[in-house]
Amino acid sequence: MRNIKLDISYDGTKYYGWQKQKDKKTVQETIEKAIFEITGKKIKLIGSGRTDRGVSAISQVANFLDESKFDIEKYEKAINSRLKREYITINKVEEVDIDFNARFNAKEKTYIYIINNNKQRGTITRDHEYYYPYSLDVNNMNKAIQEIVGEHNFKCFEAAGSKRDNTIRIIYDAKVYKEKINNLFNNSERIIISVTGNGFLYNMMRIIAGTMLEVGRGNIKVKDIKTIIEKEDRKNSGKTLPPEGLILKEVKY
Amino acid sequence: MRNIKLDISYDGTKYYGWQKQKDKKTVQETIEKAIFEITGKKIKLIGSGRTDRGVSAISQVANFLDESKFDIEKYEKAINSRLKREYITINKVEEVDIDFNARFNAKEKTYIYIINNNKQRGTITRDHEYYYPYSLDVNNMNKAIQEIVGEHNFKCFEAAGSKRDNTIRIIYDAKVYKEKINNLFNNSERIIISVTGNGFLYNMMRIIAGTMLEVGRGNIKVKDIKTIIEKEDRKNSGKTLPPEGLILKEVKY
Repeated sequence: MRNIKLDISYDGTKYYGWQKQKDKKTVQETIEKAIFEITGKKIKLIGSGRTDRGVSAISQVANFLDESKFDIEKYEKAINSRLKREYITINKVEEVDIDFNARFNAKEKTYIYIINNNKQRGTITRDHEYYYPYSLDVNNMNKAIQEIVGEHNFKCFEAAGSKRDNTIRIIYDAKVYKEKINNLFNNSERIIISVTGNGFLYNMMRIIAGTMLEVGRGNIKVKDIKTIIEKEDRKNSGKTLPPEGLILKEVKY
Repeated sequence: MRNIKLDISYDGTKYYGWQKQKDKKTVQETIEKAIFEITGKKIKLIGSGRTDRGVSAISQVANFLDESKFDIEKYEKAINSRLKREYITINKVEEVDIDFNARFNAKEKTYIYIINNNKQRGTITRDHEYYYPYSLDVNNMNKAIQEIVGEHNFKCFEAAGSKRDNTIRIIYDAKVYKEKINNLFNNSERIIISVTGNGFLYNMMRIIAGTMLEVGRGNIKVKDIKTIIEKEDRKNSGKTLPPEGLILKEVKY
């Protein structure tokens, strides 16, 4: 028995999220099937966490216990070749310690939220960004997001009705910046909201993005973020932005 | 009556090509419908040329005769707003001389063909590039493509069975180069085959791309291109590469 770790990119707009569901095509199930086709052994893929429908990943990490003797050097190519009609790429395959668990051993995750703040909607990027063509103060957004760094009770950024007991998380790094993209269709900037933390509550990143949008518009002041966190009430933060702007960028162990 | 010129980007993988067809969703028909919704007048959109299913455009040009009195300043926003669930962007709307015809007045067109020559298939780009992970000599490809510049009979690069009488075209510029893209998912290079000409025969750009691929692999020598053109026989050139790598980049008048 081996323990195999995968580094995976996917276009979340093509699947009903990461997690296996009855009668719906999901990322987890699609990869599990590809591996079954190669080895003939059913496996259970453990992701670092679920991503919702519409959320993509630059680098998601998962592991599975493998009873097969398939040549580890050939796994990456073999899986990718079975995924060529899919929107999933296996970036790396490696054997890891038998105790490694992609979910429980994850120490840090980085999510980014992409805002297209240009005049025009992106043509080939419109499923992977939130289009918001109105004026935003990015400097203020970046000042405001510094307030979330550290260990806090983030109940204000958790979807209403969530049943999680512990809403305390540590945010290691948070920033809002502009980045130039060149996808050949256009050379233009996007606003990126980037947050690295030890864990995220349900919808947390999308609510943080929505709150930063209000800061950018001037509806929430930089100095108010501290109070919003302290009051621990979802009602005080911004709206939940749509999933298509959200991307899991990195998981560290 | 006014004559309106549009500059349009679209993701060709979402439509059955440019040209209107019965029971199929095409780019032309989708834009015509959007304009009809705004003005209540049926219009006929004249594109600079048809693009096949799967072929995208960075900048396609089209015009239509407009009987409406809709405010020209508000057209761009109005059309784009009706196209927000589509994969089409109107980049510019302008009134032009009543005699302007996007098809017959086109002087130069530039097409690019995108090859992903990296180890991995692109995750969010896989529908807009041709994945070819084997070694290619880009310098030789660029040397070879210089042979097509000038006025030539390009029968060798026309799809077999085409019925066009005149297969002479002028190529003004042709090059093969590497360009770094950053789509946030990855920062990596693509090989771009770029050709500017006064017109293109059916499948001409995809056959040129296939021929350059053979040069890159070493199966066709740089010095053979001249002979391939002179022999005027489709059998001597490379295969027709798939439509997804092809993009209409610019039309000049």
